[in-house]
Amino acid sequence: MTRRPASGIRPGETALDFDPGARADAGVTFIGVIRSPWRHGDCPRNLREARERGGGGTVWLGPEYRAGIADLAAGQRVLLLYWMDGARRDLVVQRPSHGEPRSVFSLRSPARPNPIAVAAVTVTAIDPAAGTLGIDAIDCYDETPLLDIKPWLASVDVPPDAAVPDAAPP
Amino acid sequence: MTRRPASGIRPGETALDFDPGARADAGVTFIGVIRSPWRHGDCPRNLREARERGGGGTVWLGPEYRAGIADLAAGQRVLLLYWMDGARRDLVVQRPSHGEPRSVFSLRSPARPNPIAVAAVTVTAIDPAAGTLGIDAIDCYDETPLLDIKPWLASVDVPPDAAVPDAAPP
Repeated sequence: MTRRPASGIRPGETALDFDPGARADAGVTFIGVIRSPWRHGDCPRNLREARERGGGGTVWLGPEYRAGIADLAAGQRVLLLYWMDGARRDLVVQRPSHGEPRSVFSLRSPARPNPIAVAAVTVTAIDPAAGTLGIDAIDCYDETPLLDIKPWLASVDVPPDAAVPDAAPP
Repeated sequence: MTRRPASGIRPGETALDFDPGARADAGVTFIGVIRSPWRHGDCPRNLREARERGGGGTVWLGPEYRAGIADLAAGQRVLLLYWMDGARRDLVVQRPSHGEPRSVFSLRSPARPNPIAVAAVTVTAIDPAAGTLGIDAIDCYDETPLLDIKPWLASVDVPPDAAVPDAAPP
């Protein structure tokens, strides 16, 4: 493994000459947090690994936003959008710890110009008054800021020709 | 249809007493735009309808970000994240033009605290030098700001138990 210095790059990587985080075209507001079993150092690399390891998680919504989950139900599948707030944002070509350099938009790496993650999860419990949703699995650090919840819909979230294996490695 | 005044609400709707767009916890940067056939008034209601109507679209990346698509390929499926910049952000319970009031996080409506859309599309062509990706379909207005491109992966983007019809209406 080639360790990457905080402000440096590994061989084969390409960085922007500016920080996209300092060029805000629009602002996002954190509507809650995701509670997970994971701390730095033990976080699953992706949602598939999180499902395999088990443990579940909880979505906690701020009081102002709780009326927004009234029509969700246990058993329903949702997309969670969350903000990977520790990630650097300037690497357009990056080298995973084990592997060759890859272009950022072919990776699910948290290091990307806009560090927004998308996770397809199942709601296991709901308490609208407390503003909480239990979820089957999640791959983020505990207390990761939440941006959005959307119903997951097979008719729009699965490309029509996608009944085949993944076209790209994870 | 109950027309909603720009600053008003329809019967049954609930609005926040602040504009989430004025409470930025973090900033997003626009990395490009999506060119689509759609103008205000003729935009498909969702990606399924866009696929049915046909027409495709083009993703255009800013010059700084073009190295980030080098490892994508035609035929690959990707998630596009884009910013629905015309939408109001304060409705936590909203009433679609035809229907009963629904909580925002059970809808895919563009009107939401963080107006970030997620679309699962297929890359039909790629020109890394020009920074363009052809895509099979898209449900946004022409020139919608782009936030991110991620590889779509069945192993993470389809919930494990999801070989069943949608649990919620679109």
